[in-house]
Amino acid sequence: MIFSLREILDRAKKKKLKQKLAVAAAEDIYILRALARLHQSGLVEPILIGNKNLINELAKQENIPISKYSIIDTKSTQESASKAVELIRDGHADLLMKGMLSTKTLLVEVLNKDTGIAAQNLLNHMALFESPYYHKVFAVTDAAMNVAPDKIEKVAIIQNTVNAFIKIGVKLPKVALLTAVEKVNPKMLDTVEAAAIVEQHYESRIADCIIEGPMALDLAVSKVAAEHKHFIGNVPGDADILVVPEITSGNILYKSLTCLGGAKTAGVVIGAKVPIILTSRADSDESKLYSIALAIELSQ
Amino acid sequence: MIFSLREILDRAKKKKLKQKLAVAAAEDIYILRALARLHQSGLVEPILIGNKNLINELAKQENIPISKYSIIDTKSTQESASKAVELIRDGHADLLMKGMLSTKTLLVEVLNKDTGIAAQNLLNHMALFESPYYHKVFAVTDAAMNVAPDKIEKVAIIQNTVNAFIKIGVKLPKVALLTAVEKVNPKMLDTVEAAAIVEQHYESRIADCIIEGPMALDLAVSKVAAEHKHFIGNVPGDADILVVPEITSGNILYKSLTCLGGAKTAGVVIGAKVPIILTSRADSDESKLYSIALAIELSQ
Repeated sequence: MIFSLREILDRAKKKKLKQKLAVAAAEDIYILRALARLHQSGLVEPILIGNKNLINELAKQENIPISKYSIIDTKSTQESASKAVELIRDGHADLLMKGMLSTKTLLVEVLNKDTGIAAQNLLNHMALFESPYYHKVFAVTDAAMNVAPDKIEKVAIIQNTVNAFIKIGVKLPKVALLTAVEKVNPKMLDTVEAAAIVEQHYESRIADCIIEGPMALDLAVSKVAAEHKHFIGNVPGDADILVVPEITSGNILYKSLTCLGGAKTAGVVIGAKVPIILTSRADSDESKLYSIALAIELSQ
Repeated sequence: MIFSLREILDRAKKKKLKQKLAVAAAEDIYILRALARLHQSGLVEPILIGNKNLINELAKQENIPISKYSIIDTKSTQESASKAVELIRDGHADLLMKGMLSTKTLLVEVLNKDTGIAAQNLLNHMALFESPYYHKVFAVTDAAMNVAPDKIEKVAIIQNTVNAFIKIGVKLPKVALLTAVEKVNPKMLDTVEAAAIVEQHYESRIADCIIEGPMALDLAVSKVAAEHKHFIGNVPGDADILVVPEITSGNILYKSLTCLGGAKTAGVVIGAKVPIILTSRADSDESKLYSIALAIELSQ
């Protein structure tokens, strides 16, 4: 069990391995500021890929020391993405971070069948949360990448996320398939799909975890709520991984936890040979640092 | 602006009107316990409708004093629902509360064209929240009743909820149409629908409010998040009413606020001639009391 995101950061720091972080399209003042702080943490050694003149100019404007960074000059964001993926593929970098380019541009290169670095067909976003109202760190997936995953894609999302939990030391994670209700209702397709996924799990086609659902969020995180509704299982009140039906409910849950729940968060894209860090400008410095630490933990 | 649910309770208490509360299918120990506490609050005078023998037996088992309550004996839950609605229709009761019967059984009677008490075709659930992370009481709709409302139904939900806000003293409430992103994306139908609703609002077909969207939850409740995303509007950081795309995301938001956000809540169904109180066994006593107080405020 992991009690705080700080634990993940401390573990990453203890390794004292400076991971090489390939930053695709680094010509952005927010990225450069964040990298300066990350560099101080001793966790990573950035490799900046992008418009070299612009990177130098931006760094100069704010006196950001980048003389120790490698810079690879490129002509386009597509070339930055391609080059960053190449560095990972050839073992010259350990972690991949999205800079000033669209997620799509980066992922096209990651998923390229000949030159890409996908470990399988499906990548997904995993967000970890540390909430003052829950007893351990838990994940929400997929709140940021797969818009409306079908059942097969959802099974892949679950397996990716379970594998990630095992990597960070949580054996046999408990997975809750979130819906609005516990009863399978043909008018609520999410509930039908959740029951089918649980069935697949019973047939051992999704391994190394406990999966239960459909269930509403209150059951996943509260044993008392489960008792009120006479729901018997191993997941209620102790879920590690919350699987949302589609991106909108995931995004609303993510924002509710961070903006209206006092939760801290760390997020990465998993399913490629290395974790991919997609920070957004709105992320706090703390969240960016935790995301890097999580990526380091997962890259081992 | 309303800062706390206690304010709504205090206002209801100040009126010193004992509202007559028709309880449809009161033969349930949880309902009787809750009513005993509500009765002490001085807010309501319950009229119990249901299996009289069973009601008396349950009350005796736990020494719940019900001798001062009116009891109307019925033979079925359908009859209880019908009788409760009749009391409201004929002015013999002021508020309607769901007891030990399905929501559907009750609503069929409420919505009956000849004998029902619907003020219009659409009823919706409105949940108020008081969050330690927000500066005022806000609403989420519809997290509990309409499964997948279409655009026309959503407009009715918004108008019902705006009218309710005006009744509780919030003039020109700010409405946020929640989705995962701010950009209209044909692959995310919620965003297309939200833009169409905002268009209707500009044409003044939804009155007495400010409506903006599509927007993610962080923008609705945080000005800083809106600035990061260069979203300009009157709603960001100050939303009163959060409209969710469908019931699953609504339910997840509701449960996230109460189970993982430290929020207090009150909920009623609006759109009938009187507010309908649908408490669930899992609701806290405090939440049940706030819901009754809210119903009293809305019934004026």
